[in-house]
Amino acid sequence: MLRRGFQMAVIHGHHGTLPGATHLLPRFNPASAFGSSTESLVSRFCQEMTKTKNYALPNASWGPDMLSLYHEFLEKTKTDGWVRVPSFRSNRDHIQGFKLPLELSANSDKSDWRLFTRCIEREGQGYEYVIFFQPSEKKSVCLFQPGPCLEGVPGFAHGGSLAALIDETFSKTAYLSGEGLLTLNFNIRFKNLIPLGSLAVLNVNVEKIEDQKMYLSCVTQSRDQQTVYAKASGTFLQMQLEEESSQQ
Amino acid sequence: MLRRGFQMAVIHGHHGTLPGATHLLPRFNPASAFGSSTESLVSRFCQEMTKTKNYALPNASWGPDMLSLYHEFLEKTKTDGWVRVPSFRSNRDHIQGFKLPLELSANSDKSDWRLFTRCIEREGQGYEYVIFFQPSEKKSVCLFQPGPCLEGVPGFAHGGSLAALIDETFSKTAYLSGEGLLTLNFNIRFKNLIPLGSLAVLNVNVEKIEDQKMYLSCVTQSRDQQTVYAKASGTFLQMQLEEESSQQ
Repeated sequence: MLRRGFQMAVIHGHHGTLPGATHLLPRFNPASAFGSSTESLVSRFCQEMTKTKNYALPNASWGPDMLSLYHEFLEKTKTDGWVRVPSFRSNRDHIQGFKLPLELSANSDKSDWRLFTRCIEREGQGYEYVIFFQPSEKKSVCLFQPGPCLEGVPGFAHGGSLAALIDETFSKTAYLSGEGLLTLNFNIRFKNLIPLGSLAVLNVNVEKIEDQKMYLSCVTQSRDQQTVYAKASGTFLQMQLEEESSQQ
Repeated sequence: MLRRGFQMAVIHGHHGTLPGATHLLPRFNPASAFGSSTESLVSRFCQEMTKTKNYALPNASWGPDMLSLYHEFLEKTKTDGWVRVPSFRSNRDHIQGFKLPLELSANSDKSDWRLFTRCIEREGQGYEYVIFFQPSEKKSVCLFQPGPCLEGVPGFAHGGSLAALIDETFSKTAYLSGEGLLTLNFNIRFKNLIPLGSLAVLNVNVEKIEDQKMYLSCVTQSRDQQTVYAKASGTFLQMQLEEESSQQ
């Protein structure tokens, strides 16, 4: 019984009926009310918001490597079609006006939610990262500078902190490339440790989209590409969001 | 060239000579100076320290489920040989008196390091967890209550936050079971989302130890075992720590 879950929800296309798990299963709706081209996904998801802090902008903690590569990619947003993906306090800010295929009423009254990869407010202490997305090629690059609060082996980033950021970059890339919204599985092979405070570059590609699933890969390496830190792959579930019936 | 890394270091048993990566490769020393029975590992690694805060103790944010299961396992530490694994601000606190097989001099002068899974100081906001280890059976149980700063899908724990904690529980279990110290690879399949604020139970087992590698598995589920949240597996590299030459 417990094997049923995300994947069964795709196959059957409706909420499951497992006792105690009905609010956990995603619902796939093939007759969604809005267009889902990459262009429309990007324009909706990546809009800048004046009232909401964008954490994907440079701050004083960014080192020279992080800054210079950031400006290289910023140039590409003007000439090569790349998009800088904004990063807000919560995914709620990205999907305003749309509802998730999950029943969240029991958990929706708190104001202290934070996206895990933005959980540490103080600049430079935790995750510093920015994602750039290339819509026509369905790929992303994430610049990652781990702070001292992401430690695993003394002096180096915790493997789990890299895994979580790859999952997050996968997630944003999968959604923008075709509404891949939930991680089904994730695999990572570690090659070398990332020194805290240094720059690691995550190169993410959508490998294929098949049967409402998206398959992504990631190579994480140093800027000069001489050191591979990790290789990862992940599968995401496609789910179209529905517009809220009473939009403001 | 870049394929060489952790695993090659095991095979050759010495530091690699890759340019730019010499401080990243582990060194395996089969002629370690101290005994490495599970008993001695536990007694050294799990000693309580009066001057160092132990984050694995209950606080006001723990819900009734977390508290009652914690007390169940605490009873087992008295009768069934289970050990409560202390959790400090940094792995440095666990390995005092021993040196890692890595050159850390460039990164060892900062005082703001924090173990990633203890990165959020405020009680109840981030990771609340405690690991219990069973030495004779080489298995662990981790009680996990994700706070609002671990959000992914609104209202639920980020998949990466669970992946990181499984990696951390693997890491502690692997070390205590036989000096498995570095994650080589990690795989996770997500089945259901974990509501923020609820209790998830991680059941970790050492499946086998072979060729200086340790293979671990984890099933994460609700307390009543009716909902499986994720299944994971991981491989760790065995590395014996050496005593520091000038111990205090």
